[in-house]
Amino acid sequence: MDFKGSDILSVDQFQKEDLKLLFDTAAQMEIYATRQRVTRVLEGAVLANLFFEPSTRSRVSFGAAFNRLGGEVRDTTGFRFSSMAKGESVYDTSRVISGYSDVMVVRHPEEGAVKQFADATKIPVINGGDGPGEHPTQALLDLYTVMKEHGRSLDQIDGLSIAMIGDLKNGRTVHSLAKLLSLFEDLSFTLVSPKSLRMPDEVIERVRSRNHQVQETENLAEGVKNADIVYMTRIQEERFSSPEEFARHRGRYSIDRKFYADQCKEGAVLMHPLPIDGRPGAQEINDDLHGHPKLAVYRQTDNGIPVRMALFSLVLGVADKVHDVAKDALWYHPEQVDSE
Amino acid sequence: MDFKGSDILSVDQFQKEDLKLLFDTAAQMEIYATRQRVTRVLEGAVLANLFFEPSTRSRVSFGAAFNRLGGEVRDTTGFRFSSMAKGESVYDTSRVISGYSDVMVVRHPEEGAVKQFADATKIPVINGGDGPGEHPTQALLDLYTVMKEHGRSLDQIDGLSIAMIGDLKNGRTVHSLAKLLSLFEDLSFTLVSPKSLRMPDEVIERVRSRNHQVQETENLAEGVKNADIVYMTRIQEERFSSPEEFARHRGRYSIDRKFYADQCKEGAVLMHPLPIDGRPGAQEINDDLHGHPKLAVYRQTDNGIPVRMALFSLVLGVADKVHDVAKDALWYHPEQVDSE
Amino acid sequence: MDFKGSDILSVDQFQKEDLKLLFDTAAQMEIYATRQRVTRVLEGAVLANLFFEPSTRSRVSFGAAFNRLGGEVRDTTGFRFSSMAKGESVYDTSRVISGYSDVMVVRHPEEGAVKQFADATKIPVINGGDGPGEHPTQALLDLYTVMKEHGRSLDQIDGLSIAMIGDLKNGRTVHSLAKLLSLFEDLSFTLVSPKSLRMPDEVIERVRSRNHQVQETENLAEGVKNADIVYMTRIQEERFSSPEEFARHRGRYSIDRKFYADQCKEGAVLMHPLPIDGRPGAQEINDDLHGHPKLAVYRQTDNGIPVRMALFSLVLGVADKVHDVAKDALWYHPEQVDSE
Repeated sequence: MDFKGSDILSVDQFQKEDLKLLFDTAAQMEIYATRQRVTRVLEGAVLANLFFEPSTRSRVSFGAAFNRLGGEVRDTTGFRFSSMAKGESVYDTSRVISGYSDVMVVRHPEEGAVKQFADATKIPVINGGDGPGEHPTQALLDLYTVMKEHGRSLDQIDGLSIAMIGDLKNGRTVHSLAKLLSLFEDLSFTLVSPKSLRMPDEVIERVRSRNHQVQETENLAEGVKNADIVYMTRIQEERFSSPEEFARHRGRYSIDRKFYADQCKEGAVLMHPLPIDGRPGAQEINDDLHGHPKLAVYRQTDNGIPVRMALFSLVLGVADKVHDVAKDALWYHPEQVDSE
Repeated sequence: MDFKGSDILSVDQFQKEDLKLLFDTAAQMEIYATRQRVTRVLEGAVLANLFFEPSTRSRVSFGAAFNRLGGEVRDTTGFRFSSMAKGESVYDTSRVISGYSDVMVVRHPEEGAVKQFADATKIPVINGGDGPGEHPTQALLDLYTVMKEHGRSLDQIDGLSIAMIGDLKNGRTVHSLAKLLSLFEDLSFTLVSPKSLRMPDEVIERVRSRNHQVQETENLAEGVKNADIVYMTRIQEERFSSPEEFARHRGRYSIDRKFYADQCKEGAVLMHPLPIDGRPGAQEINDDLHGHPKLAVYRQTDNGIPVRMALFSLVLGVADKVHDVAKDALWYHPEQVDSE
Repeated sequence: MDFKGSDILSVDQFQKEDLKLLFDTAAQMEIYATRQRVTRVLEGAVLANLFFEPSTRSRVSFGAAFNRLGGEVRDTTGFRFSSMAKGESVYDTSRVISGYSDVMVVRHPEEGAVKQFADATKIPVINGGDGPGEHPTQALLDLYTVMKEHGRSLDQIDGLSIAMIGDLKNGRTVHSLAKLLSLFEDLSFTLVSPKSLRMPDEVIERVRSRNHQVQETENLAEGVKNADIVYMTRIQEERFSSPEEFARHRGRYSIDRKFYADQCKEGAVLMHPLPIDGRPGAQEINDDLHGHPKLAVYRQTDNGIPVRMALFSLVLGVADKVHDVAKDALWYHPEQVDSE
């Protein structure tokens, strides 16, 4: 696709060559994301960061990525625009904000709402998550992480074995990641979930239609034993009709150091889209894994910055100008931010 | 008036020569507002954007305008300051924020509250709307739009015919715009409203005292037939004591393509301060007018950026330095943001 | 201590030489804080300004201070992170935000919570107030004000007499300020409060152990008569179990022009951490003192900017580079912001 001026609404927009361009660009952004250099390529540009449901992490990640390119951010965090409460249409809201900004990120609780924003304007609109719909930038940073953690180029993702674990029914990130991965060759998916939280057939069909292997199991040890990537997800309390139903599933799949050492394949990479439910009885990734070299979850969230910087710079057509207006960062930054 | 260091509290502060300076300055800002060039004249300056009632559109517009001048924005969006909840006076709140910022925008639900903020500090304070009081920057961008849409200089506004339609009793924007327009010569106003939502006599008197024509009618077709400017307003649900009372007025005045073609004067410009009530049964401007060349409502909201940039640059005394610290914008921007 | 990379969690971290370095740095920042010059030393850096309880003043002060150094600010103002509501640990929240930012300010209602944020990351974390715990930057700006108001260098604070007045039990700012002051020599403290709101013994012991004089009284005139610094505090409604109990204490200690003239030592400096309860019946500092040359409360809050700029520049290791990337401010700023 031609990124310049495009909306980013769904992982379905991306072909392999688009991912290659995106990830090459993201790799170029790492020097800025890690605060070794500063670029001012978007100095004077304005991001409208519109969050119609709370998601502090995504909001700050998009905003910080735009700041790292030199741009300014205008945030909205209310559940509704005050004007929408007075009956304003999505068309009008989007068009008005388009006059104030150069690009919009929209998070909205309703599937399809972000597309309505995009339809009302020619400035680029990026989907920051539309309810049960998509959250394409999460899937993109996940795939970037898969690539980096195995020290591979994008062409070498072929042949990997991926275990996806937890609530595969409601977890939109695993749906989107599975779709993106299916663009590659010869992958093997193991889907670990209770029967009631199975991956939707639509996603499984998509993956199988691309000639990848798909196995399903309820057993965690069985599921992870051959996996190069162990992708955990949270059992989402808000998806269950009763606390009892939630309690039946919570904590069912949990990995700690001992389990990893005993059951996982050597070198297996532990991923999670976050947040982890860190409360006693849940901890799908146990605290005792903090500092473990194969725990990739914090590198994964860090990757949100270069991937989102890459998206912004591509849709705004400045990817090739980033280094022209760059300089050294003057301030202190620790070599690694992890405390352990 | 001498803009430098001044508060902007009311349209009554403006004489014709002030408007001329303001709009000349706004015209100079358009190249930045449309992202062809970037200016850094306020690099290092801080706007305190204080919103004591929700108004996402105004808040983002002021903030984006300040960003386009190179300045930084600190937003507050709570209904009250936490310190005011503890009994802090307006004087103290204003004085404290003055130590952190170079200019304040204040939106407040109570008439006169913004003036209290202004009285407590020597830094410029701009009224972003004080309840039933004023919203002077809206009236200024409306007048700027009237001027531009007719391709006129400010001196050529004389002689225009303006229809104002809807809730003329509670709509503070029509009060302020009528007062501003009355500075010119030989205008003809047609006020279209239900009897219970008539324009206040005080405003009509002001306009008549300047020798303009004023007619009132309840009939929309009658009201618009000679108008160069058709200024629609929303029937504001929040102003009515009962849903039944609101229902009686809602949707009473509504313009669509057919009505425009059949009833409006050729070349009549359609304006609206937004938000339009886009719900079925209201739509004072029908969706079928999207893309119509004479629908000026989105150009009108876009004009908020250059007009607010002009105000900031004048009260901060940098209007003549804007171009000295400017450069080309590096990023892609569509030639027009409208999707149709 | 070595500021570079350090967390700022408690006044107990500071020795006299640290204060000297901090205040020398703050003095260097005044030219930027008063908008005569602009520095861009932190251009490209991002502050995560995390407020888990409302405190508009502190949030805007930290944010504006970071902006004055050229950096960008990402604010959060919700009571909880959305992800924490889903069970995310402080460790994870802190580590995630560390990947987006260069320094964090954290305000939290629970004592010790900010330290948990700091323990999870190597980027600097500054305590913006942790419930009944500490608010170290307030105490630092208070001490800076004491020094400046008496035209003294830090070495000349020895020998001052300080009256602290009001709710000395619950007012964490007086606890922290007393601890900081106790690093100096030969001070005399007079603690004025109702018996039920006495300064905690732990604080008094600390001060006495450093050989300072401490007297307690319930009588305001008695308490202020020899004081060089009169430090008022608000009786905090939210600390009392019943409105009746609050009413018994409210307004008990109040200073106006007449009281100041009759009872205070010549040249005594009036301070207050703000907010003042400005409602009738409270007014611990009466409105009639506005404009009085010895009323230092607004200079005190203004000092928050250079002191916080100094902290940011020291923990980020740029204090010696600030002037290298500076230029004149282009915009108008009044010589003083006070209206009187």
